[in-house]
Amino acid sequence: MTATPALDPPARVLLGPGPSPVHPRVYRALSAPLVGHLDPEFIALMERTKDLLRRVFQTRNTLTLPISGTGSAGMEACMVNFVEPGDRVVVAVCGLFGQRLAEVARRCGAMVTAVEAPWGEPVPPEALAAAVMKERPKLLAVVHAETSTGVLQPVAPLADAARECGALLLVDTVTSLGGVEVDVDGWGIDICYSGTQKCLSCPPGLAPITVSDRALAALHQRHAPVQSWYLDLGMIEQYWGQDRVYHHTAPVSMAYALYEALRLIDEEGLPRRWARHQANHERLVRGLEALGLSLPVAAPWRLPSLNAVSIPDGVDDLALRRALLRDWNIEIGGGLGPLKGRIWRVGLMGHGATAENVVLLLTALGSLLAAHGFSVRPGAAVEAALAV
Amino acid sequence: MTATPALDPPARVLLGPGPSPVHPRVYRALSAPLVGHLDPEFIALMERTKDLLRRVFQTRNTLTLPISGTGSAGMEACMVNFVEPGDRVVVAVCGLFGQRLAEVARRCGAMVTAVEAPWGEPVPPEALAAAVMKERPKLLAVVHAETSTGVLQPVAPLADAARECGALLLVDTVTSLGGVEVDVDGWGIDICYSGTQKCLSCPPGLAPITVSDRALAALHQRHAPVQSWYLDLGMIEQYWGQDRVYHHTAPVSMAYALYEALRLIDEEGLPRRWARHQANHERLVRGLEALGLSLPVAAPWRLPSLNAVSIPDGVDDLALRRALLRDWNIEIGGGLGPLKGRIWRVGLMGHGATAENVVLLLTALGSLLAAHGFSVRPGAAVEAALAV
Repeated sequence: MTATPALDPPARVLLGPGPSPVHPRVYRALSAPLVGHLDPEFIALMERTKDLLRRVFQTRNTLTLPISGTGSAGMEACMVNFVEPGDRVVVAVCGLFGQRLAEVARRCGAMVTAVEAPWGEPVPPEALAAAVMKERPKLLAVVHAETSTGVLQPVAPLADAARECGALLLVDTVTSLGGVEVDVDGWGIDICYSGTQKCLSCPPGLAPITVSDRALAALHQRHAPVQSWYLDLGMIEQYWGQDRVYHHTAPVSMAYALYEALRLIDEEGLPRRWARHQANHERLVRGLEALGLSLPVAAPWRLPSLNAVSIPDGVDDLALRRALLRDWNIEIGGGLGPLKGRIWRVGLMGHGATAENVVLLLTALGSLLAAHGFSVRPGAAVEAALAV
Repeated sequence: MTATPALDPPARVLLGPGPSPVHPRVYRALSAPLVGHLDPEFIALMERTKDLLRRVFQTRNTLTLPISGTGSAGMEACMVNFVEPGDRVVVAVCGLFGQRLAEVARRCGAMVTAVEAPWGEPVPPEALAAAVMKERPKLLAVVHAETSTGVLQPVAPLADAARECGALLLVDTVTSLGGVEVDVDGWGIDICYSGTQKCLSCPPGLAPITVSDRALAALHQRHAPVQSWYLDLGMIEQYWGQDRVYHHTAPVSMAYALYEALRLIDEEGLPRRWARHQANHERLVRGLEALGLSLPVAAPWRLPSLNAVSIPDGVDDLALRRALLRDWNIEIGGGLGPLKGRIWRVGLMGHGATAENVVLLLTALGSLLAAHGFSVRPGAAVEAALAV
C-alpha cells in the first residue's frame, strides 16, 4: 500500500476547448450541503433550474432539463430517444462532433446520410436542405458550434426545409449555449443539447437539453423502447415533471453548480454575455494577428467561444503547449483528427471570456514564440488587442 | 422575469437510501480549482483513483474506473458492453434493482431469464446455479445489496456455476461497496459496478466499475458495436488507459470528490469500515425493537447499510416522513413498488453510519410516534441502542 497524496490541483487558466474557468460562486455552490434527490427543497431547485435553462435556450419547451452526464450523454440522449432502427437521419459533418452525431445515429440503427464540408467550413444550408428534401429523414442533425474546428454553423435557415419534410431539427449547442446566441424557439429547433463545461462555465458533468412539443409527440409515438434505460426521456420526464417518479439519483452537487452558473448568466443578461464573448474574440484575433499568427477559419464563420489558430511552421505543438502550462499555468487545446499538430484551439468561454485572459495569453504566447527565435513583440500584440 | 433566489439548501441528516452524508473533506475537494481533463495533474489523479478503486473493490483488474454518470449508468455500462442481441442473460430478481437489471438487459436485445424470490428475501444461490446450468447464459447478473428491500444477496457461491458454464458474473454493489464486504477477485466477479452516493459517501454522479480480464476478452470479441457510444468501454478504456485518447470530458469536480472519498476509506481501512457499518446497524436494530418496531427482513439477510423497517399500523407513512424532515431535518426513505407505504428505508451509509445518527433517528422517531399516541419511550430506545 502506497500513501495517496492529498488533492492539490494547480490553479490553471483554462483557455482550451473546455472545461472553462468556473466562477467562485459556482465553486461555492458545489460544496453546499447535500439534500436528498426527492427533498422538497431539491424539487424546488429543479423547477427553478428548468426555468433558468428555458431562458438561456430561449424556449418555452416544457421538457427542458439537465441530463445526468456530460455533453456527449446529451448527444446520445437526443439521438436514442428520437431515432428508431431503420429511421433516416441526415447529419451535417464538418468536424469531429458532426462525425460523432453520425456515429451515435448509426448505433441507434439509423440509415445515416452525412452531408459533408471541409473541416474549417460550415456545411452549406442549401446542401442540407437539398439532402432533407431528397431523403425525407426523421431527423436533421447539425452541430451549431463545431468545437474541433472553431466554425459556427448557420442554424436558422434549416427549420423550413425540416418542417416541410416532417423532419425534426436536432442541434448540438455544446460550445455555443451561453456564449453565442442560441434561439431554440426562434430558429425552430426541436431537440437541442449542450454541456455545462463550456460557455455556461460550470464544471463538466451535466448536459442541458430541451425538446419541443412536436418532438415530444414523436417520442410518445415510438414503436420500440428506447435502447438506453439511463437516457430514456419518457422516464426522466416523469422524475423532472409533476410526478417525481424515482428514475435515478440526480447528481445533486452538480445540479447546485448548474443552478448558480445559470443565475450568473441571468444576472449578466444574454445579450451582454454574447457581446462580451464577441468583443474578447475580436481582441484575441487582433492580438494574434499582431503576433503574425493566422486563423484558418474565414472571418464570417468564426466561433467567438472557440478560436482555431494555425500553428506556425517551425513550432513544436506539444512543446509549446507544455511550456504554456508549465511556465504560465495556461491550458489551450491542440487539434483533433486531421487538424492535429496543425491548429491550436483557444477557448474564451463563459467566465473565461475576459480581456485579462486575452492579454495574458497573448503575452505568454508572444514570449514563448520570441524565446523560440520568432521576431514577435508581445507588447504590440497586447496593444493591438486592447485598441478600440 | 422573476428573480431567482440564491442557493441555500438546508443541512439535512441523510439517513435515506442515498445520497448519504458527505465528509467535510469531500465537500472541500468538490470546490478545488478545475484543471483540464487531459492535464498531466488530472491524469496523475486518474491513476491514483484507479488504484484506490482497486483497493475498495478488492481486485487487481486493470479496467477499474468511474463511469461518468450515476449508479444506473454503471448498470447500463455493464450490460451494454457485454450483452449482444440474442444473448441469454440470467438475472436474480427480488427487488426493484434486480427488475431494472432485467429491463436493461432486455433493452440490449437479451433473452432474459429472471429467477425470482419474494421481495424481502435473497434469491437462493442454488436456484441461480440451476438456471445457469439450464440456460448456459452469456451473463449471470445479481444485485449484492438490494436497496429496495434491504436484503444482502450471497454472491460468493455463484462463481463456480458461472465459470462452469462460461457465463460472466455481473454484480451490482451500489449499496454495499465501501460499507459491506465486496471481494471482486475472491468471489470470482467478472463485472462489478457501484455508485458514489451510498457507502462511498461522495455526492451522486459517478459509477465506479471494474471488469476482469476474462470479461474484457469477451468485450473485445463482440460482433456488433456497443449500442451506447457514451458508455462504450472500449473507447473509455483508451482515455483512462495509457493512450489518453479523448472520448468525452471527464466530470473533473466529481472526480476530485471521489478521490477524496476513497482516500478517507483507505485511511479508515476496509475491515474497520465494515465493522462500523455492522455495529451501527446492530445499534439501530436494538433501538427500533425497543420502540416496538419490527424489521421485515430476516436477520441473516439484513443489509447493514440499508435497513427496512415495517411501518406500524395506524401511522401515516408520508406524514411521518414529512415531520421527520421538517422538525428534525432527517431524511429517511419510503418503500418502492409493492413495499410502498409498508416500509421505511433507513440508510446508515459511509460517513453517515455513526452512533450519533442512530441515536438521533431513534429519538426523533420515538418522539414522533409518542406524539401520535404510541406508547413508546425514546430514551429506552437510545439506551437499548447503546447497550453493548
